This record gives sequence, C-alpha cells and structure tokens, in this order.
Amino acid sequence: MRIALNKNFQKLETNYLFSEIARRVTDFKRSNPSSEVISLGIGDVTLPIAPTVAREMALASRGLGTDSGFVGYGDTLGTAELREAISRKYRSRKIHIEPDEIFINDGAKSDLGNIFDVLGKNEVLIGDPVYPVYLDASIMSGQKVRLIRSDEKNGFLPSPRDLPTSPFVIFLCSPNNPSGATFEKEQLKEWVEFAILSGSLIIFDAAYESYITDSALPHSIFEIEGAERCAIEICSLSKSAGFTGIRCGWTAIHKEMPIHSLWKRRQNTKFNGASYISQRGALAALSEQGELENAKNVSQYMKNARKIADFLKSRSICYTGGKNAPYLWFRIPTKEKSWEFFDRLLYSAGVVGTPGIGFGAGGEGFFRFSAFAKEGDVDKALSRLDKIL
Amino acid sequence: MRIALNKNFQKLETNYLFSEIARRVTDFKRSNPSSEVISLGIGDVTLPIAPTVAREMALASRGLGTDSGFVGYGDTLGTAELREAISRKYRSRKIHIEPDEIFINDGAKSDLGNIFDVLGKNEVLIGDPVYPVYLDASIMSGQKVRLIRSDEKNGFLPSPRDLPTSPFVIFLCSPNNPSGATFEKEQLKEWVEFAILSGSLIIFDAAYESYITDSALPHSIFEIEGAERCAIEICSLSKSAGFTGIRCGWTAIHKEMPIHSLWKRRQNTKFNGASYISQRGALAALSEQGELENAKNVSQYMKNARKIADFLKSRSICYTGGKNAPYLWFRIPTKEKSWEFFDRLLYSAGVVGTPGIGFGAGGEGFFRFSAFAKEGDVDKALSRLDKIL
Repeated sequence: MRIALNKNFQKLETNYLFSEIARRVTDFKRSNPSSEVISLGIGDVTLPIAPTVAREMALASRGLGTDSGFVGYGDTLGTAELREAISRKYRSRKIHIEPDEIFINDGAKSDLGNIFDVLGKNEVLIGDPVYPVYLDASIMSGQKVRLIRSDEKNGFLPSPRDLPTSPFVIFLCSPNNPSGATFEKEQLKEWVEFAILSGSLIIFDAAYESYITDSALPHSIFEIEGAERCAIEICSLSKSAGFTGIRCGWTAIHKEMPIHSLWKRRQNTKFNGASYISQRGALAALSEQGELENAKNVSQYMKNARKIADFLKSRSICYTGGKNAPYLWFRIPTKEKSWEFFDRLLYSAGVVGTPGIGFGAGGEGFFRFSAFAKEGDVDKALSRLDKIL
Repeated sequence: MRIALNKNFQKLETNYLFSEIARRVTDFKRSNPSSEVISLGIGDVTLPIAPTVAREMALASRGLGTDSGFVGYGDTLGTAELREAISRKYRSRKIHIEPDEIFINDGAKSDLGNIFDVLGKNEVLIGDPVYPVYLDASIMSGQKVRLIRSDEKNGFLPSPRDLPTSPFVIFLCSPNNPSGATFEKEQLKEWVEFAILSGSLIIFDAAYESYITDSALPHSIFEIEGAERCAIEICSLSKSAGFTGIRCGWTAIHKEMPIHSLWKRRQNTKFNGASYISQRGALAALSEQGELENAKNVSQYMKNARKIADFLKSRSICYTGGKNAPYLWFRIPTKEKSWEFFDRLLYSAGVVGTPGIGFGAGGEGFFRFSAFAKEGDVDKALSRLDKIL
C-alpha cells in the first residue's frame, strides 16, 4: 500500500493503558492458572444494574420482535424522551439546557476522542496525570499538547493562574480520574473566567459526578456562570448506572457555541445513534425509581472506597479521592516505580491496581485503586495487601 | 471562542441528506396533519427482528440485573464469541479471516467515517452517485476527492480502467447504494488488481450483501484473490437482521495490512465497544436459527422489490437494482429535477422516496425507492403512484 497513513500514531505509546494492564494480567494468569486475581484496577463497575433498567431493556428487546414494538433508525442525536429527561435532570440543578442541546452518545469515550473532528489545530491543555484518552486522542489528531502538572502542591487540581492568555482546548475532569480530587465552585469559576478571557474551549468530563457527596461541590460546569459560552460537557451513565457494557451517555453543547452545529453535522454523518435498547435503559435509569436504585449501587461503591481509605490511613499512606469519587490515589510508599509496584501487587497478592505512570509522567510513583469491586473482593484484596504493604 | 475549528465543514452541504428528507417530511406533516405518509425513502427496515434475536437480547438485558449475568466493559474490539462467529461465517464462503482481524462496531456508518482517523491526506475515489457518508466524511477530514461517474453507460458500476496508476483511497459499495447494481467477480477483480498495482486502499461497504440472490455474485471483496493485501470490508447487521436501531456490525482488516494495528489503537482509544446487548443479539442473528429467521424478512423485502419493479416496468421506466439489492433506482420519467420530483410525490401522493441528487451530482434526474416498507404500505404507495405517474 502506498497511501498515506496518519503519522501521528507513531508518537503514541504502543498500547492503550488498559489494554496493557489486561495483557499483563493475562500473562500472569497463564503462568499462575490457579490463583484468583482481584481487580481494583480499571474503573469498571461490578454490581448488577438497577432492576428498573434491566426490566425496561428486556421489554424494549422483546418489543423489537413485535409489529407494535419494532423501531428502526431513531434520531441520530437521541430519542426525544431521553433528551428531555436529561434536560429535566439539568433543570433540577437550576441549569438550563434545551433537549436539542443534548447529544446522546454511546459513552463518553467516543465523544472525548471524536470531538477533534470538529476542531482545527490548537494547543490542548491536559492535566498530568489524567485519563489517558485526552492525550492519546490529541496526539492522534495532531494537536499541540501542553501538560499541566497536577500534584500534591495543587491538590491534583490544576489552576489556570500561570497560563498565557491564549486560546486553548482545555480538558477538565472532575471528580478527577485518576486522583479523585474534585473542583470547588471557586476553582471552576477561575477556569471559566480564564476560558472566556482567552477564547478557550473547555471540555468538561463529568463521568463521575454521581459520586459527589459534598453538597457544595459542582456536579456540572454549567453551574458556573458563563460556562454556556465556553464549555461543553461530556457525561456518561457508565459509572452512575452501571452502563459500562450497555454504552450510553451524552454531550451537552449550548446552541450559542459555534461547535454546536458542527458537532450535529459530525454526528449525523459519522454516527447512527446509541442503541435503541440502551437509550430505553438510559431513560429508565434517569427515572425516579432508576435514580433510587442507582444510588444504592453508588453508595455501595463508596462504602468500598471508605474501606480502602481506612486501609491506606492505617498504613499512613496519604491519598486523595475516595470521598467524592470512586478512586483513591496515593504515592507508592516504597521507592518502586508504578509499573514495578503494579507487578509486585499482581504477582505477590493477585491484586490489580492502576499504575500512576499510565496517566502521564506526573503519575510516576503513584498508584490508583478503584472502589468498583464487590465488597467481598475489596475485603479480600485489603487482607492480602495487609501482608505485603 | 478563539480556538480553531475544522474549516472543512464549510465545504459541506448544510444538511446530511436524510436529515433534509426528515425535515421536509416534518414540514409536510405539519401542514397536512391528517394525511398518511408512506416511506419508500430512507433505507430503514420495518419488519420485527428475528424472535431468536429479541429473546436473546431480552435475556441479556435481564441478566445484567443479576449477579451472575452482569457484564461491564468488554473487549473494545468485540466479544470473542461474536468475532469467532463472524470468522466462521466468512469461512463458510471459503474466506479466511481470524477473529482478531474482525472489529465489532456500532454499525457501518461509524467506521466508514472514522476510518479517516488512521489515514493521512490522500486522494479519495468515490462513485457518483453513492451513499453520501463517503463524500461527507472525506470532506470533513480534508481529503482530496475524485468522483467517478456511475451512470447508465457503466451500469452504475464504475471501473478503474481510465484511472492513473496512483494510490487512492477507494470506496466501493456492492450491492450498491443507491443504484442496487452489484459487481460481478470479474469487475471486482479489476478493482483489486488496480489497487495492488497502484498501492491503493479499497474500503468495501458490504452492508447489503445479504440481498444478493444471484449465486455467482461475490458477497465479500475477500472472495477476490489479493484483496487481503489491499482492502478492508465494512459490514452491518442493519439490513440483514433489522439492526438499524440496535446498532452492530463489523469491520474486517487482515493483519498484514498496516492499518490493522492503527485501527486497533484507534478503537481502543476512541471507542468502548458496541453495546453488550447488541452483541448478544448479533451472535443470535448469526446463529443457524437466526439466519433462517432473518432470511424470511429479507425475502419479504425482496418481494416488495419485485412489486416496485413490476410497477416501474408497467410504466416503461428503466431501473437498476431490486434483484440483488433492496433498492430500485430509475431516471425520473418527467423532466423534473430530483428534489422537485421528491416534493411532488410527497405532496400529491404522500409517498417519500430519495432524490438522486442527494447521492451526488451524478444522481440528478434520478430517484431511489427502497423495498423496506411493509408489504401493505408498498401496495398502497404503488396504487397512489399509479394515479400520478
């Protein structure tokens, strides 16, 4: 073949972080077939989805096999009912977003990467450490990248204070993956003011908002005045409703943002909507009953988070997160590098975590535990870790 | 906002074809609330999905609400079972494709557009008229586009004979949308030989292969020797199994193609897999029972196609398609332009078709009917058309 390929791929790390973790776990299992591996690694939920949601999706599935229940292509941008339900959800937080400002997606990851389709070449501002998709997608699309260090000094929450007033594409993730740190209103306000002043675009990743327990903390960037002119918000039902396998979320873009019409055109051309069944499930997940049932799972995960937090405290290991987020992030108490620590935990305790370096150079020497395992598994993992840490 | 946007969007037609059709139909319904509109327009299926598939997806949905049936993130590239089933399906046509050469997607449209993520800037060869996604996605990603006219002279199947031997990205669609014309083996062989000689990449859209009735016609480009070195194939369950709302398909890329690893990296970064429920449904659709049940729907649609064909014949309107494809494509018998004809059919008969111009300048003066309506609706549409054509 002599056609041109996208050369930017050469600048990527060979493996996507979670593929690399999966590879190492598979290697371990192959050489240790009898040992049971417990994952506090990838942020994947483990509890069954809400009964309301399961029932609704089963109904939708059966319906598709009948004359009256069959549905073909829907609106690529999402069913009217689901977009209205999300608009109402925002309204309950006093945020005004019209249904046609909501774009249903098949999960946050797609939109976080595909958003570059509607952008030109810019300088992209990315926390370090952070969810690796921001960086990888930026590199793939040939963006100039500026990393801003997140560390103990800034509580793993970067601020725009030292930045030049030039236009950036800014990824913000709060509650943060991996650190679990969560922006306060004043901090987000600084970012929104900076974005307006500099002509920047904020891409706000709110995938973990349902884990916020502190009522003063913002769940959405649109709680900040002016954000409707400079920010878009990408949301997911993966963590709030257990949709990691079901695939449904949304992106909110106000019509006054020029990228609203570009994104609409992009989605109509290169997407054909989230699965109808998933959208029916999403609608059930956002119903009163659904929210109640989802909240039970969330509080179960947060109970796990407290157990992991207590363990870390008992070892005098400083950590962030675990209070308004399902992640706990800590400096590795020994001098091991994060992949070394990963391998040691895997090989001597059969416990999988996520090495900090996987989230960027700033994560070297750190480690992330997720609270998404089942309670019994968390207990077992902690008692195993008890022996080696 | 001062960040750079993707300027290529300015070169696009304002509306995606099927959004424009939907807009006009909505306008008509608003001013004619009592009239019943029958669609022979967008290629959307109407019959209930196979009972086997509905049952399996209901089972999967209910399972997600239980401890034993819950499933979170799967392999982004698709479940092992589904990829094996597809590999077996190819094997039954004597085509060798490994499961890890199959990438499960959420429908062909996503991959047809997203494939540009792994390509550099090339000259893209696109039939005219053809499915508008190829052109729109090419324009969005800043490709140079060369249209090759498909017309009565070449039976709406372009050949590479007059092309310079330089590397192109080539979109081929067979059975063709919109013309319904289908490549013979010898014709496809010419394309594969041209691609190898010129260093081109063929993107083969096989979304309609299940409508082929003539046993001599190729269902897959991989039936042609050498295609594994120059072609990728994008497939869909939308039309074969009624998955237009369910969203599942696949892309096949042999490992010896350099874009195999790039596409894998792209999908791992910017996609999180098709819905687990849809994948369970897809597996059922590819089972023996599923294939049997799907075939019943396909033959019902083809019965509609014959009725439309008979109608066109009775009016001495020449057409292509309808024999190995669910589309019938014809020159508008009056001198009307295709949007004029569209509006006339809509306003005087309440029948929606697809204007040829929507598939490219070469489609002006042509019109497409799809055979996907319910039989009763097809009958009704034809008797209405009987009065005005």
